[in-house]
Amino acid sequence: MSASRGKRAEEIFEAAVKVFYERSYADATVQDVADEVGILKGSLYHYIATKEDLLFWLFEVVHEQVEAIKVAAEAATELHPLQRLQLYVHGQVEYNLSNIQQISIYYHDLGLLGPERAAYVRAEARAHNDFAVRTIKEAQAQGEADASLDPQMLANCMFSTIVWTYRWYREPGSSEGRAARAPTADLCTAFALRGLSARST
Amino acid sequence: MSASRGKRAEEIFEAAVKVFYERSYADATVQDVADEVGILKGSLYHYIATKEDLLFWLFEVVHEQVEAIKVAAEAATELHPLQRLQLYVHGQVEYNLSNIQQISIYYHDLGLLGPERAAYVRAEARAHNDFAVRTIKEAQAQGEADASLDPQMLANCMFSTIVWTYRWYREPGSSEGRAARAPTADLCTAFALRGLSARST
Repeated sequence: MSASRGKRAEEIFEAAVKVFYERSYADATVQDVADEVGILKGSLYHYIATKEDLLFWLFEVVHEQVEAIKVAAEAATELHPLQRLQLYVHGQVEYNLSNIQQISIYYHDLGLLGPERAAYVRAEARAHNDFAVRTIKEAQAQGEADASLDPQMLANCMFSTIVWTYRWYREPGSSEGRAARAPTADLCTAFALRGLSARST
Repeated sequence: MSASRGKRAEEIFEAAVKVFYERSYADATVQDVADEVGILKGSLYHYIATKEDLLFWLFEVVHEQVEAIKVAAEAATELHPLQRLQLYVHGQVEYNLSNIQQISIYYHDLGLLGPERAAYVRAEARAHNDFAVRTIKEAQAQGEADASLDPQMLANCMFSTIVWTYRWYREPGSSEGRAARAPTADLCTAFALRGLSARST
């Protein structure tokens, strides 16, 4: 199943995200998604066979989109390791802030995928983790990051800053609106990069 | 409903945590919890009236326990603001690592509480947020934290480091076991405190 399948597929995808986000994946039905698109349930079955197909589609789309952020950061070999991580964190936070519904479903309903699909998602996530750990180790070797700290745990902390935005960020204009996306991504990036940096005292 | 209600109540509480964690709150039944304790469902109804009572009980217990961490950090007025936050982050991370099941349910199923109870939980969480923001502002006023950064967003980043541990920490001995609790809490605290600190360059 490919992530992009034309205009109608895109409408279905967007409707599924909205319905799963608002009603929760567990409670929502394929009928709810069909109603949201305004098509018959039978027509929806041209695109997917089960409700889980819609959920997995979301994971595929997210991974396809964040892959580009990782590739760009990895390719920026003219930058220092911490600068590559800075690029990565900023891109990932901006992506999450722009896709709060997808990211919410991603982290809430990961456990509801079947074992094979869950393994696929874990492998995709592992590639991001491996990039982070590898680059943190480079930064440690160059004295930019504290070599006494476990690089895997530092990567976990870095991902915390990226991921948890989906639980606290509110779009400006909503009742809890606090900040626009760009300055929020700037601040999260500053926080995570200071966290990774070697202590100067 | 008080958080502590004797030995049998404690058994029921522990059984509910285990069952909700393993089967998910949405899928688990009061019968599952009674079976886990090894009592009749009717006996369980001496303690609670609905499944949601069991869920809310968990929120009460968590809040009662983390309240002590906040109170101790607030009371340490002999310390600098960032040191008080250090005490707080370390205590909170240690608590989370020791109570992964409760914390997982807390963050996964918060949305399944009724509106009044959800408002109670939000108020409890807000008290922690207010402590953090107030103390970050103090640190900014004393030049310990970068005064150009929004204190509320810095608090959100700090809480990310605390909370997200429940998704990545694995007890040593499990197949993914990586580190014991104390050094993990030390590292998370170092990461978050560096994140909050004023840039020295």
